[in-house]
Amino acid sequence: MVRAREAVPVAPVGGRLAPIGVGAVEITGGFWAERRAVNSASTLEHCTSWLEELGWLANFDRAAAGQRSERSGREFADSETYKVIEACAWDVAGAADPQARETAERLYQSLAARVVAAQQPDGYLNTRFGGAGQPERYSDLAWGHELYCAGHLIQAAVARLRTAGEDAFVRAAYRVADHVCSVFGPGGAEQVCGHPEIETALAELARATGVDRYRQTAAAFVERRGRGLLPPSLFGSAYFQDDVPVREATVLRGHAVRALYLSAAAVDVAVDTGDDDLLAAVVRQWDATLARRTYLTGGMGSRLMDESFGDDYELPSDGAYAETCAGIASIMLAWRLLLATGEERFADAMERAMYNIVAASVGRDGRSFFYANTLHRRVAVDDVDPSTPHPRSVSGLRAPWFDVSCCPTNSARFLASLPGYVATADGDGVQIHQYATSRVRTVVRGMNVDLDVETDYPVSGRVAVTIRTDAAEPWSLSLRVPEWADGGARLDGVPVVGPVARVTRAFSSGDTVVLDLPVVPRLVHPDHRIDAVRGTVAAMRGPLVECLESIDLPPGARLEDVVVLPEPPRLEAGRVVLRGVTVEASQQLPYRREPDRSSRSSEPFDVVLVPYLEHAERGPSAMRVWLPLATPDPEATA
Amino acid sequence: MVRAREAVPVAPVGGRLAPIGVGAVEITGGFWAERRAVNSASTLEHCTSWLEELGWLANFDRAAAGQRSERSGREFADSETYKVIEACAWDVAGAADPQARETAERLYQSLAARVVAAQQPDGYLNTRFGGAGQPERYSDLAWGHELYCAGHLIQAAVARLRTAGEDAFVRAAYRVADHVCSVFGPGGAEQVCGHPEIETALAELARATGVDRYRQTAAAFVERRGRGLLPPSLFGSAYFQDDVPVREATVLRGHAVRALYLSAAAVDVAVDTGDDDLLAAVVRQWDATLARRTYLTGGMGSRLMDESFGDDYELPSDGAYAETCAGIASIMLAWRLLLATGEERFADAMERAMYNIVAASVGRDGRSFFYANTLHRRVAVDDVDPSTPHPRSVSGLRAPWFDVSCCPTNSARFLASLPGYVATADGDGVQIHQYATSRVRTVVRGMNVDLDVETDYPVSGRVAVTIRTDAAEPWSLSLRVPEWADGGARLDGVPVVGPVARVTRAFSSGDTVVLDLPVVPRLVHPDHRIDAVRGTVAAMRGPLVECLESIDLPPGARLEDVVVLPEPPRLEAGRVVLRGVTVEASQQLPYRREPDRSSRSSEPFDVVLVPYLEHAERGPSAMRVWLPLATPDPEATA
Repeated sequence: MVRAREAVPVAPVGGRLAPIGVGAVEITGGFWAERRAVNSASTLEHCTSWLEELGWLANFDRAAAGQRSERSGREFADSETYKVIEACAWDVAGAADPQARETAERLYQSLAARVVAAQQPDGYLNTRFGGAGQPERYSDLAWGHELYCAGHLIQAAVARLRTAGEDAFVRAAYRVADHVCSVFGPGGAEQVCGHPEIETALAELARATGVDRYRQTAAAFVERRGRGLLPPSLFGSAYFQDDVPVREATVLRGHAVRALYLSAAAVDVAVDTGDDDLLAAVVRQWDATLARRTYLTGGMGSRLMDESFGDDYELPSDGAYAETCAGIASIMLAWRLLLATGEERFADAMERAMYNIVAASVGRDGRSFFYANTLHRRVAVDDVDPSTPHPRSVSGLRAPWFDVSCCPTNSARFLASLPGYVATADGDGVQIHQYATSRVRTVVRGMNVDLDVETDYPVSGRVAVTIRTDAAEPWSLSLRVPEWADGGARLDGVPVVGPVARVTRAFSSGDTVVLDLPVVPRLVHPDHRIDAVRGTVAAMRGPLVECLESIDLPPGARLEDVVVLPEPPRLEAGRVVLRGVTVEASQQLPYRREPDRSSRSSEPFDVVLVPYLEHAERGPSAMRVWLPLATPDPEATA
Repeated sequence: MVRAREAVPVAPVGGRLAPIGVGAVEITGGFWAERRAVNSASTLEHCTSWLEELGWLANFDRAAAGQRSERSGREFADSETYKVIEACAWDVAGAADPQARETAERLYQSLAARVVAAQQPDGYLNTRFGGAGQPERYSDLAWGHELYCAGHLIQAAVARLRTAGEDAFVRAAYRVADHVCSVFGPGGAEQVCGHPEIETALAELARATGVDRYRQTAAAFVERRGRGLLPPSLFGSAYFQDDVPVREATVLRGHAVRALYLSAAAVDVAVDTGDDDLLAAVVRQWDATLARRTYLTGGMGSRLMDESFGDDYELPSDGAYAETCAGIASIMLAWRLLLATGEERFADAMERAMYNIVAASVGRDGRSFFYANTLHRRVAVDDVDPSTPHPRSVSGLRAPWFDVSCCPTNSARFLASLPGYVATADGDGVQIHQYATSRVRTVVRGMNVDLDVETDYPVSGRVAVTIRTDAAEPWSLSLRVPEWADGGARLDGVPVVGPVARVTRAFSSGDTVVLDLPVVPRLVHPDHRIDAVRGTVAAMRGPLVECLESIDLPPGARLEDVVVLPEPPRLEAGRVVLRGVTVEASQQLPYRREPDRSSRSSEPFDVVLVPYLEHAERGPSAMRVWLPLATPDPEATA
């Protein structure tokens, strides 16, 4: 039997930093502990109920019984079950509450058994293809999502393998992977799946099992892409990233989740094979994407129509798609780049998306979700029925489920695995990348290193790390200084320069290091090339993007009429506050000879913001992140 | 036999102004004469070739032969043939070239015969429904476009009736209309078509024939709408304007062409029945739509996904949909409102869309078309094959045809009928609303009034009107003063106040009146509520919106890096010219602590614009209408 390696979501063979796994990092309190508790207590059961109610789970039972004529859901419906299984696998090892671990184990067992029963004798496992009355296996690689589903199954099995060890489900995944490799591996069919996912999955399975064939097949899929193996979609070959080979591309493009999953796999292949050129190609694409195709929230993918990135600087607030899954995928990619390079800017990007995409997408109840994460909702829209899947990806409130429901289950597996994204170790010491009250246990050069992190982050910027082990020799504790701290961070009272606060010492148990980050509200200005937000500002506090909801406006004021004054934001009763005015609306063609000087304005009033991640929690509301700045006007009294 | 009334596209029974028909207005030279000549000489044949090649015409032959199993094209394909027939019908009376009139007559006869042959014994005529192996008649009113197609057939017949008199095609249209009225008229099925068109068609047929039942059915369709008679689309009931009754709505919403066609019909019903409340409701919706949901080009409908208006001030330049058919529909509605009210602001709106949507959509060759009319193309896109229908509505160059090809044929019928939208008469005299070198013949209080209009408009702002008849008593010549003239218009050298320049006199033959309009380039500033274009300016010259194409930039400059300096535009060698600089691109996350002051800029250079209607005529180019204004910066040297 193959043994689990450390319980990490990603286990590169090479690279700069070694991840510390779920279980070895325990998140015990604060923001993410709360979110994870809700995920364990509510979201897993919520997702499973919908899978059952809609018949997506019954698809496995019907397939097992050879009765496939009645299949429910879209072609990728199997993957939702796999993501819930993956979430359970992480929770079995990582849920803070022992009761939650037991529940997760029970749910895991029941779901896994139904999946395993549907496997074909030759290892193939998909409820949508290959059965009586169904399309042939692999007859629609572009859109059928067969390998995508297989990838999610394998990822779930890798999580299980690393947190609990081999079992029937894991062995089923081996057989799925073997089947995929025999059909598509080196020497096999020169084809790729329309939606990348199998690539990272096989790379991880290779890492977890040591079977090199999985890695070779993952590498083959990565290298095949960009060579026109898929029929162009209505949106062109870029939709599938089949327009340019990964190593030649200069920026992420096409369908955002596809692009990010593919890039993550490219990093896996690059790191495991020491292919620096491939790694550099992905870093180059990441940098260009961050500079020109990323929202303030970390959201990626501007276009609704094809869920794609769009062109450089095409970042409309109101049309922002910024799919939750793309946010999660960007975290997966950034984590791999952080492990590969050790550069904290990747952890900055993770933090941005964790707070402003993942935490914003999942409602506080753990039973409602945004699929698209707009930055500007012009009209309060009450379009969600909590008892019905939402037919569209864009909604005015968080919805319980969607006709295409990738995001809820993706959030669930990410939140369950989140401890695995917090800290790393290397020969020099321990690096803390994300801040949460937590306990971290690892080994540095043979020395056991335990530490406790205590913080109210992001409400407070104080992060206290207490070492719980004595060290025979010096090691380094490295704490990320977020880019947004902008020179304002202090380590034990001393200003920190650069992206890392580091203390190197032969620590004794009880030693405490305190990082202070300036989580005072600040204004953020956009690059002038982003047409959609020219002339506006946004407020942030620490990693949190703030927004204005119409529900917080004075009576009678309309969101579209509000402009803010160029004054520093204040913090009042825990809320970020600006000053603003409303400007009278015109009823003419809105194009004029003279600049619109906003002169007929109201008396100034407090513009009270709310963290973006809390938007739409108080019912339907118009909302905007980027706030128009009052135009300078000598005549204006305001 | 019912006789043709005057050859006008719209013949209201009531209202302020009476239109002067095609034929009575002859456009003899200048901008529109050239466009109309190309329409007659190229576009009609071009459209017919595609209808033939794709089998959309053969659908009628197959239906006539009772062999319907092989039908080609979308559910609304019949309507494209009807629009070409309508264009031919107008050209028979209105084409400047006698040869073109003959060609139009031949084409009319051949197309009309094939349509007539497909009519069922009971009058029903549609190639997609009701035949063997086809869906039942009226089994999919929401999406089937049956009544929409019937409406276009009837409109074509009305054009024929008014320009040439009754014939077999016109009689076929009577029978179609009779069939529609018997099924859906008062006392019939309380249903509506998903796409309005039958309403205006029946209203016009009532006007052309005097048969009141047609008007009653048109009125019934208008009044039924907004009462949830259609199943909500994925985009909601507003998509079909089935959310709120016409008289209660406050703004146009949902699918733009649907909304505009419905509103046009509501005006027809209102005017013919003296229903001032209904007219006021449409005027209110028009005003709100112009103030908050209309592009600088006159384009309407912001959203690609459902071709809909979107929310107030949701007017992205790069995502602008602004469908050509919506532009034409806005002209049809504005013309009706002009006739009903006599207010020239509606003619202003027509002019805006005529030059910047219709003339921009149709290529100079008359064989290429934009379906969507964006205001910002970030990247030069060479995505059109002149030998293949374009699969999408958005294209980087004008395409020969589209899978959904409503726009080419709609442009063709509009251009053919254009003389009917130029001038009106009333008891007081003659009103010229659109300027073109032309001959106008009408009757005022029993007096024959002939006049010649001579102008290079819009290249020049000089419009000379010479009266060719002697008048026994005074009458008024009224000339529209476009809103953009902004106080700069002169009539015979005297400044004009207000939207009309009027001379009242017992004119003698040879009398000339000269209107001078200031077609100097000017800057236009957007309302500060239009987020997408905050901090930018656009240039216009007369009615023409100008744009910047990347092909006109200095070598190495990228469109996204160009900002213009706040200086008045100049006219040089016929081109509008601004001054601008390029600003260095950053490679970081484009959100910063400090405002982006564009300080690292190039030396200033000339930014040479081109009329929007000529964009993409020189090959693929990035393009933008709204140009970012340089941010004031004391340190900047530029």
